[in-house]
Amino acid sequence: MVVILKKGTSKEELERISRGIQRFGVKVSPVIGEELIILGLIGDTSKLDPKTIEANECVERVVHVQEPYKRANRMFKPHDSIIDVNGVKIGGGHFGLIAGPCSVESEDQIIGIAQAVKKSGANMLRGGAFKPRTSPYSFQGLKDEGLDLLLKAKKETGLPIVTEIMSTEYLERFVEDVDVIQVGARNMQNFELLKELGRTKKTILLKRGLSATIEELLMSAEYIMAGGNEDVILCERGIRTFETYTRNTLDISAIPVIKKLSHLPVVIDPSHSAGKWWLVEPLSKAAVAAGADGLIIEVHNDPENALCDGQQSIKPSKFDKLVDDIRLIAQAMGKTI
Amino acid sequence: MVVILKKGTSKEELERISRGIQRFGVKVSPVIGEELIILGLIGDTSKLDPKTIEANECVERVVHVQEPYKRANRMFKPHDSIIDVNGVKIGGGHFGLIAGPCSVESEDQIIGIAQAVKKSGANMLRGGAFKPRTSPYSFQGLKDEGLDLLLKAKKETGLPIVTEIMSTEYLERFVEDVDVIQVGARNMQNFELLKELGRTKKTILLKRGLSATIEELLMSAEYIMAGGNEDVILCERGIRTFETYTRNTLDISAIPVIKKLSHLPVVIDPSHSAGKWWLVEPLSKAAVAAGADGLIIEVHNDPENALCDGQQSIKPSKFDKLVDDIRLIAQAMGKTI
Amino acid sequence: MVVILKKGTSKEELERISRGIQRFGVKVSPVIGEELIILGLIGDTSKLDPKTIEANECVERVVHVQEPYKRANRMFKPHDSIIDVNGVKIGGGHFGLIAGPCSVESEDQIIGIAQAVKKSGANMLRGGAFKPRTSPYSFQGLKDEGLDLLLKAKKETGLPIVTEIMSTEYLERFVEDVDVIQVGARNMQNFELLKELGRTKKTILLKRGLSATIEELLMSAEYIMAGGNEDVILCERGIRTFETYTRNTLDISAIPVIKKLSHLPVVIDPSHSAGKWWLVEPLSKAAVAAGADGLIIEVHNDPENALCDGQQSIKPSKFDKLVDDIRLIAQAMGKTI
Amino acid sequence: MVVILKKGTSKEELERISRGIQRFGVKVSPVIGEELIILGLIGDTSKLDPKTIEANECVERVVHVQEPYKRANRMFKPHDSIIDVNGVKIGGGHFGLIAGPCSVESEDQIIGIAQAVKKSGANMLRGGAFKPRTSPYSFQGLKDEGLDLLLKAKKETGLPIVTEIMSTEYLERFVEDVDVIQVGARNMQNFELLKELGRTKKTILLKRGLSATIEELLMSAEYIMAGGNEDVILCERGIRTFETYTRNTLDISAIPVIKKLSHLPVVIDPSHSAGKWWLVEPLSKAAVAAGADGLIIEVHNDPENALCDGQQSIKPSKFDKLVDDIRLIAQAMGKTI
Repeated sequence: MVVILKKGTSKEELERISRGIQRFGVKVSPVIGEELIILGLIGDTSKLDPKTIEANECVERVVHVQEPYKRANRMFKPHDSIIDVNGVKIGGGHFGLIAGPCSVESEDQIIGIAQAVKKSGANMLRGGAFKPRTSPYSFQGLKDEGLDLLLKAKKETGLPIVTEIMSTEYLERFVEDVDVIQVGARNMQNFELLKELGRTKKTILLKRGLSATIEELLMSAEYIMAGGNEDVILCERGIRTFETYTRNTLDISAIPVIKKLSHLPVVIDPSHSAGKWWLVEPLSKAAVAAGADGLIIEVHNDPENALCDGQQSIKPSKFDKLVDDIRLIAQAMGKTI
Repeated sequence: MVVILKKGTSKEELERISRGIQRFGVKVSPVIGEELIILGLIGDTSKLDPKTIEANECVERVVHVQEPYKRANRMFKPHDSIIDVNGVKIGGGHFGLIAGPCSVESEDQIIGIAQAVKKSGANMLRGGAFKPRTSPYSFQGLKDEGLDLLLKAKKETGLPIVTEIMSTEYLERFVEDVDVIQVGARNMQNFELLKELGRTKKTILLKRGLSATIEELLMSAEYIMAGGNEDVILCERGIRTFETYTRNTLDISAIPVIKKLSHLPVVIDPSHSAGKWWLVEPLSKAAVAAGADGLIIEVHNDPENALCDGQQSIKPSKFDKLVDDIRLIAQAMGKTI
Repeated sequence: MVVILKKGTSKEELERISRGIQRFGVKVSPVIGEELIILGLIGDTSKLDPKTIEANECVERVVHVQEPYKRANRMFKPHDSIIDVNGVKIGGGHFGLIAGPCSVESEDQIIGIAQAVKKSGANMLRGGAFKPRTSPYSFQGLKDEGLDLLLKAKKETGLPIVTEIMSTEYLERFVEDVDVIQVGARNMQNFELLKELGRTKKTILLKRGLSATIEELLMSAEYIMAGGNEDVILCERGIRTFETYTRNTLDISAIPVIKKLSHLPVVIDPSHSAGKWWLVEPLSKAAVAAGADGLIIEVHNDPENALCDGQQSIKPSKFDKLVDDIRLIAQAMGKTI
Repeated sequence: MVVILKKGTSKEELERISRGIQRFGVKVSPVIGEELIILGLIGDTSKLDPKTIEANECVERVVHVQEPYKRANRMFKPHDSIIDVNGVKIGGGHFGLIAGPCSVESEDQIIGIAQAVKKSGANMLRGGAFKPRTSPYSFQGLKDEGLDLLLKAKKETGLPIVTEIMSTEYLERFVEDVDVIQVGARNMQNFELLKELGRTKKTILLKRGLSATIEELLMSAEYIMAGGNEDVILCERGIRTFETYTRNTLDISAIPVIKKLSHLPVVIDPSHSAGKWWLVEPLSKAAVAAGADGLIIEVHNDPENALCDGQQSIKPSKFDKLVDDIRLIAQAMGKTI
């Protein structure tokens, strides 16, 4: 950490600030120039609160030097994490292809789609049982019944199931029945939920919040990992910007940035990023080319009558072709899907 | 609702779409031009999902005409809501002046600040017992002990207490002891929490999410109100933009916009908006001039040693002067604080 | 400037970087810790390009300590600049009330509005002769004829005129006839235009770009001032964010922030910020309460038939009442309008 | 165009509005429901100003149905435009690989880099002679001398040259000597410059503004095309968002979106998007996979001592490898680079 003091800071103030910092066992090394005084802090600064230091009137600015996350940090674990979900691996060269409908709607629907996407090459099944909806008057998911249907589809196809949790209330059931517990964008900083998930042994798919920085996403992963659960898959699903043509703006740079900063696998959700079915294909290809470890794609056999988000779902035949295309791109990059 | 079809849509498609919509008891009135076909939908469209309609390839766009919120909508309740918190009124000309520290730290601290802000004119006390922190390694609040200390400060001063809930797990205790339950920006779309709060009789202070539109804020209020609890105070606390000099960008226009769209009271949090103590004063004045129903301000007797957010807290003496200043502005607008 | 080196930087690299920096006459003071090496740079760093330093692989980050603007910087001129426009002062307690139509449309229109706003208290007249329009097919202003009409209105009322320049091609005419030359948001970083304006003696009203940071706005002012023209008025007119209810988001914090960083006067354009006429009043009040040095407001006698931006214009009667209201707020703050 | 009237609009107002619209030769077809009145406008609405219509108090909202650009619109020219720059084609399956330094610095530098990038496969040479810099005190380019050096490099290598114009003042020289005239992001809405370029016969590379929507980018292209110059290449170079880790956020979705809306070729600038050299490779690959028609990449033989933007430049060896990689991806997509 580096503390920059205001021009004209007195010797007394400099000493007072330094003493305050040293109390936390941190060494203070001052650089005194005509125009500025810089304090280089040496040692474990994790207990210092930069905002409290900045509350001193003589402090111009506090600069973080090290990333505030540890367990999620590539510096502390140089090799890619490989996460094993019932035998399906993701990360470190293993590609996770997660597909399925926005919402589970019926037994026929979920089993039909599960069989179709498996045949095309998907290795996990997604499907919402509990749906976060902006309006209290919209369809909120089949809930427990939706989980039951996902289990049936898993039994039929063998695909591990990925579904979203919205509250700690259902945690026990999710731990029992779900293979990958998804935390939605709106709950990325629901810290109580993250802490509870950190106490489980389940793989967590953590979606980036609509206006969360990459560092904040990694800090939310850190919440889970700090509890002892290191099986976290990160998911970029579009951020909120001024552009309104697309529902969100897919931050494609997040893939190489996260892979540089962290050892955790990164998957892309092209369906929610774009909000339009015809963008799923080019965004999926771009994600693979940029180095993503997986994709999570909405597939629906009847998007025009889907109970939610039909607009961004593709049909199974489209998905089948998409998998062929991204396989070629993966090959061009020396990878296998 | 208005459905705009693509140029070249066939008569068959037009009829298919119309039949699909009519099935929901909605009348379809088509306007057929050379370049476009528009369907005006007449009747109760609340059960139609615009995204599903947009999933049809012949649909160009669906345009909402009416706001999707009802109970929060000024159209359904033209007069300002006045919310009564243990005798302290807010809304409809009554000004809520909520002040106190970011975090409750000790008995001396919270009682000292409570007495000081009351003397200056505050009519409610804020203070965090459960703190949402980006880092799992930061101070997370005194929790139950913090609530105990807030109760002591309430007993000493008579000020109703406002504090943040982070999980339904603590709901019972909050309903028992807290006067205004705050939902933080990060939980604005924690729908399960909102639903639970809708079942209580407590006043809820609902903060706008960092990247939530005004409509989304009102939809979150609708979640609470749909459950039967109409005592919701809305809070603008800065939105996330590209400008980095301030921590967030206070959306001052949100005050008149919300007051036009809704009957609910709006308060401003200048401390979190700016992230700098010297901006609290001008932003508070601007909020009053723009018609806010209240302010929620961080006051700390020792910001430089505060356990969190010291940088944005002002001292009691500064708060005292601030109240004098905003009283004058309120008077100039024909209001009383 | 502070240079932070990556962990594990070798002594050789440290020396190579240091020598590179010292070549610019800057002293390098290294702070060497276990986890990081910090170089404090002492002396005149204005010739160092931080991006070139950051291009070295061993450099983690370069941190600016001093603001990159000089003439616009309050550190170099502690007192508020007072700018005199033909006897009308703005800044340092003097309030500039600029009003008039979006576009000059006819002699009757501009003279009628000029007389009305003068009677209400305006001390400068605005009106577009050259209009920047998103579409090449929209009305682009009366151009030279518009300037002629503005001059007539000035002759009738004595009000100095404020109008936008779009190209250096017309500079001579503007210098001859216009009192305050406005640079629109879209041209805030048209550096060639800024340089030319820096060579004139005219007052420049510089509008903040839609996505320009406050620092970038001050750097654009610096371009003008570096040429020798110090008469710059800054204008906040709303920034682009994700919120779509308002056309732009008025960054009210920009007022106190700019006034802290710079000695230049700051005016607010509530008409363009909001894009809706009924927001002009509350935003104007908020601007005065936050300490703005002036307002620039669109007033039109017939907004429903205006040739541009009718939606955000208020009528003269509304403007008259608005001036009364903001006078009271100014008084409450110990100021005079 | 669709005009939505407010609930409770009287018959008289409805007729007044309709007459106002009909005066422009547009047919008005009203849809009258209990809760709303919708006016479907049929005919050529290009002369109607939606903002003036919205200035009527009884108007709730005006909805555009058709894109406001014509010549840039794919509806009016279904096939991809192929632009020929001295024999180098771009668009419609032809890939433009533009490479070179941020700034032209010396004869050795520019000829050396030109030869290197040509050998690797580049088919055009970029290099700044006039540099838009945020600070008036930064290096602003070699100007005329820079253009001379670019011409020498062109003579040596045969590569057409791409360089940025900053003012109409230099237009004659650019038309004489430059093959592709670049309009920078900051000048995307410098409408006077666009109009002048529309009168030339030169190919224009139009960069998207930092906060410009895709529609605004296409409207700026329309300015050039409306003047008679249809040779416009669009360039996505990152937009400004809240994320600060990358300098800008590359909007990868802009590629398929622009290709759907327009027939013009789209190139990606991964260097400016990211601001970090190690992101150039993954972003280039993603751009090719998403269907870009070209890339414009900063290559410098000595980034650590470059006179500008060293941080985002890659060395020729890195560029050579990058071209090999993207060739494989292009092949996987059935294309040739």
